Amino acid sequence: MDLSFILNNALQICLGVGILSIIYAIFLSALILKSPRGDSAMNEIADAISQGASAFLRTQYTVVLVIGAVIAAILYFVFGSFTTIGFGIGAIFSAIAGIVGMVVAVRSNIRTAQAAKSGLAPAFNMAFRGGAVTGLMVVGLAIISVSGFYFFLQSQDATPNLQPLIALGFGGSLISVFARLGGGIYTKSADVGTDMVGKIEKGIPEDDPRNPGVIADLVGDNVGDDAGMAADLFETYVITAVAAMLLGDLTFKGNQTVLVYPLLIGAISILTSIVGTWFVRVRGKSIMSALYQGLTISALLSLGGFFALTNFLFPQGLGNISSLSLFYSSIIGLIITIGMVSITEYFTSKKFNPVKTIANASTTGHGTNIIAGLAVSMKSTLAPILLISAGTLLAHQFAGLYGVAIAAMSMLSLTGIIVAIDAFGPITDNAGGIVEMTGLPQKVRQVTDPLDAVGNTTKAVTKAYAIGSAGLAALVLFASYTQELTRLSGALAQVFSLSDPRVIVGLFIGGALPYFFGALAMEAVGKASGAVVDEVRRQFRQIKGITEGSEKPEYAKAVDIVTRAAIRQMIVPALIPVVAPILVGFLLGPKALGGLLIGSIITGLFVAISMTTGGAAWDNTKKYIEEGKLGGKGSFAHQAAVTGDTVGDPYKDTAGPAINPMIKVLNIVALLIASFIV
Amino acid sequence: MDLSFILNNALQICLGVGILSIIYAIFLSALILKSPRGDSAMNEIADAISQGASAFLRTQYTVVLVIGAVIAAILYFVFGSFTTIGFGIGAIFSAIAGIVGMVVAVRSNIRTAQAAKSGLAPAFNMAFRGGAVTGLMVVGLAIISVSGFYFFLQSQDATPNLQPLIALGFGGSLISVFARLGGGIYTKSADVGTDMVGKIEKGIPEDDPRNPGVIADLVGDNVGDDAGMAADLFETYVITAVAAMLLGDLTFKGNQTVLVYPLLIGAISILTSIVGTWFVRVRGKSIMSALYQGLTISALLSLGGFFALTNFLFPQGLGNISSLSLFYSSIIGLIITIGMVSITEYFTSKKFNPVKTIANASTTGHGTNIIAGLAVSMKSTLAPILLISAGTLLAHQFAGLYGVAIAAMSMLSLTGIIVAIDAFGPITDNAGGIVEMTGLPQKVRQVTDPLDAVGNTTKAVTKAYAIGSAGLAALVLFASYTQELTRLSGALAQVFSLSDPRVIVGLFIGGALPYFFGALAMEAVGKASGAVVDEVRRQFRQIKGITEGSEKPEYAKAVDIVTRAAIRQMIVPALIPVVAPILVGFLLGPKALGGLLIGSIITGLFVAISMTTGGAAWDNTKKYIEEGKLGGKGSFAHQAAVTGDTVGDPYKDTAGPAINPMIKVLNIVALLIASFIV
Repeated sequence: MDLSFILNNALQICLGVGILSIIYAIFLSALILKSPRGDSAMNEIADAISQGASAFLRTQYTVVLVIGAVIAAILYFVFGSFTTIGFGIGAIFSAIAGIVGMVVAVRSNIRTAQAAKSGLAPAFNMAFRGGAVTGLMVVGLAIISVSGFYFFLQSQDATPNLQPLIALGFGGSLISVFARLGGGIYTKSADVGTDMVGKIEKGIPEDDPRNPGVIADLVGDNVGDDAGMAADLFETYVITAVAAMLLGDLTFKGNQTVLVYPLLIGAISILTSIVGTWFVRVRGKSIMSALYQGLTISALLSLGGFFALTNFLFPQGLGNISSLSLFYSSIIGLIITIGMVSITEYFTSKKFNPVKTIANASTTGHGTNIIAGLAVSMKSTLAPILLISAGTLLAHQFAGLYGVAIAAMSMLSLTGIIVAIDAFGPITDNAGGIVEMTGLPQKVRQVTDPLDAVGNTTKAVTKAYAIGSAGLAALVLFASYTQELTRLSGALAQVFSLSDPRVIVGLFIGGALPYFFGALAMEAVGKASGAVVDEVRRQFRQIKGITEGSEKPEYAKAVDIVTRAAIRQMIVPALIPVVAPILVGFLLGPKALGGLLIGSIITGLFVAISMTTGGAAWDNTKKYIEEGKLGGKGSFAHQAAVTGDTVGDPYKDTAGPAINPMIKVLNIVALLIASFIV
Repeated sequence: MDLSFILNNALQICLGVGILSIIYAIFLSALILKSPRGDSAMNEIADAISQGASAFLRTQYTVVLVIGAVIAAILYFVFGSFTTIGFGIGAIFSAIAGIVGMVVAVRSNIRTAQAAKSGLAPAFNMAFRGGAVTGLMVVGLAIISVSGFYFFLQSQDATPNLQPLIALGFGGSLISVFARLGGGIYTKSADVGTDMVGKIEKGIPEDDPRNPGVIADLVGDNVGDDAGMAADLFETYVITAVAAMLLGDLTFKGNQTVLVYPLLIGAISILTSIVGTWFVRVRGKSIMSALYQGLTISALLSLGGFFALTNFLFPQGLGNISSLSLFYSSIIGLIITIGMVSITEYFTSKKFNPVKTIANASTTGHGTNIIAGLAVSMKSTLAPILLISAGTLLAHQFAGLYGVAIAAMSMLSLTGIIVAIDAFGPITDNAGGIVEMTGLPQKVRQVTDPLDAVGNTTKAVTKAYAIGSAGLAALVLFASYTQELTRLSGALAQVFSLSDPRVIVGLFIGGALPYFFGALAMEAVGKASGAVVDEVRRQFRQIKGITEGSEKPEYAKAVDIVTRAAIRQMIVPALIPVVAPILVGFLLGPKALGGLLIGSIITGLFVAISMTTGGAAWDNTKKYIEEGKLGGKGSFAHQAAVTGDTVGDPYKDTAGPAINPMIKVLNIVALLIASFIV
């Protein structure tokens, strides 16, 4: 393999790796599907979950299809067919990533529950395999869509306009906002609503089959944590790749190598992620370190791969950037990933001080639990921000804006293994639910409980990763926006000066968006969970035999009600990031719009990190006390911890994660309208 | 009076108005002091409050004196004697403003309680008079310090270097950070700690004399809401005036009129504030509209005054800015004030939807109360930010950066009447406490209760005003920083470009500071209230007769313990805004420091507004339910609302308001070190 071969066939190589990733995912799925599904009681529940999840996705994507069609029509009239096709591909692939993640998860959960009967290792392997399918599908679809579409564009024009690629990112992001919001509202309103009647009013345990909302709650884990997360990371991956290509194109006009370099970074890490999954083995060590081992091996292998690739592609460096400098930029992405994972683990794990502090504060009541939790959530933002700042500064030092883009791409390149670790969470959560509902013996629960607890931490860790990478991706998008404006206006570099009041006002308005969006998302959970409470109460009241267990509740009815409530509540906040940049761009001009983008990234990072980390800390505080600490289950401290967990739910699973795609939609809409507002 | 007379004697005029303001405040104090103090039981309590408050301020200022002396010594060696004198004056006057506010409040509370025996109007007048003393002292001291010190500087050099004036602002801000933090930690840890043992563990009502922490709690209202707030607004006023002068000096080199214009705006509004206080009469209308009537009249009179002044000073305009444009800029400040007041009222008053939403959410539990409250707190940031943005943009449109400075000064000019309305709050709160503790008849309580409730809203309203004006003041400081850098580097305008990674990293780090600072402040309340809980529990345990009321608790002991805990917790967070800009400035350079300043303003505004507004909304939700709504006192909803109130306490009274002086200290330290980092 020599340089010219790789260069000439880079897109085909990426496509090939993407297809390989999907084939391997299908192979893993086959392994999962041929594993035993357990007894009929388990099957009944798993089927109900699966049907509920499908029903939700059907309704959700019907609504999204209508909105998407309207936007596609506008894009067609304004930008023409290629851009519309790009948007369509992005949207469809993003939707597929989400749907696949969900489909696999609802098939792995029951098999994990069944495997738990044979012990920890089989259950762990089954759940991780399910997660790996989602992870490999996400990266496979992402790299196929970007390199495939770019290949198509190049076949039409040797140096194509990249706007259709931006539209591809837009399609992905838009779906992702809906998936994160719709799924997030669904999962938490089902959770909060079900618990509020079941646990608090009726005093029956979690995941009790007598609770009419219990299936909706289990469905929620899949549509929120799985489908939403998969669409989110698909989108971040695509956006980062597109933004890196765009920035490379704008900075090094005419150089094709800078366009394929980010994609090849992605391709390398897909391969190393596959290898990494082979090293996830739970023998003789903690579950968490088994997962981290896979991640570490993937990262190390990628490191070697990036070194070889960079030397291959840029033997003479790139302009005045040495190839070593480019390689250093790519290392930074890996370091940020490891750093974000470690920081989040510190703030959310039961082993460390933050969770213990909240637990101690719980002994004095609900209010002090919340105060301590809010303090932890706010405090948890400092280290990640310093890490991202240092990374940005160093990457820029090494290789300018393109270096920042490469760092972002290298961070995102680990998506395959990271999503595998994450998607493990909702599968074990569901498995635990099935075990509980079917009354399997205590020893099975002793297998699924620790898996579930680890799943909680990995979910938090991935959210921090998603936010960190979203922040970097958005910065790269912003850089593309400024470069694009410069190109369009034909002037010297467009300057967004902090002394320009329009920029300041843009920063303020942009800063307000994550707050407003987050508030609406929190409110949405409040309203939708109110609908759940009403329905669950109604069933307890009208179906007499529920409480004694002689009659079965109407699970499907509850599922249906959450579905409709979540979809209704999702629409308005999801349109904010589409409408706001258009309004600001046309009313206040490109400077204010530039400010808006950065403003939204700044407060967006803080709001998202504080919410996801704080929420997970509250969750694990409850688990910490439930282990018997500070009085254990049922104690005064435990009641306070339950309150904290309730507050943390919409924080970490609805509002916080939905901010990632939001700031990217903002940035990408700005890029699309740039040519109209100059 | 002709133009040259005003110009030649502008500083003397301002000094004269300042002295008049103080004389009038002394006159009002005399009226208060000759009013009856009630019976000996009341006197005993009021004396205990007064002694506790004095003890706290003594301890606090001893610590602050040491830190201040160290900083003064550094300033002396680096900048010389005038700068050190400026710092000293700022610090001492800020401290005096706080102390006076407190001294008057602890004398007005008992007289308000006594007056309440004769009905609403006398009690209202007494409390408002107490507030007016604080308000007029704050603006009087502020304008005297700035115009007096500038007069002194001018006597040494006809066109003096303004750095000593910046140091004056620094002194004021530094004291204010300590006052806000120390007072805020004190008041909330006493409140939370006392309630947690008293109300929750022992089941005795609020303000019950058997609770050993009750005096500490009442002391807290004075040292937090009164002394802290007075120091804060003194500082904001001084900083805004200094920043406007500095900006005028840097923009219109050699023009003396632009230097005195902001001071004269202040002088006019001091006069109109005095007149405004005469129109605060509670006859035949609600308490709130009585207060607003005074504010409205002051604002309208100021409007006329500004028009006359601007035409007088700038008959030919200023450069290419017409005098009408300058006048328009000054109107913007008044409009922002009225707007901030109305928005906060909407989000925190029991009459409107936000509080009702939280109240409804309380019926389903602690968790849903908190979720709804957090949503309201986040949502409440949008309108103020849009208002400030629109104001900044318009003022800049009218008269450039100087126009923004004038808008900020005109906003701050109403401080006299605003503080009068605010300082009314802790006085009525204390009066209610005294009435409760001495077991005065129900009809007296029926007078003090509604006064107390209105006090809650006015406290929230003033906090929003303080934050809005702090944001504007900080923007003006930032503009001065950029102008100063330009002057120092002798280059073209220093550009802080959003495409510069150092600026972006500065924005991120700056954005992190309010989060980190806020987190530490919340934690501090947690730790200090833990100390209170221990002490109150100890007294209940060791002093046998407390519960039956046969033995008196050791109030002073509790006061002493809160004092020490609050002071200890105050030091580290208070040093963040001093140390952070020095570190970033010297390590990452002036661009990153510029980013840091704006970053801190952006997230600072959001964190502060969401905390103060959200906290007040939670507080009033509790009051709303206590009026008998949704089950009333003791209901499930009420318990949840108490939790929300507990969370809101450190939000609105500790962390939120302390962010104002913090962002200004950051900006002013940056200005001071500018010449060393270019």
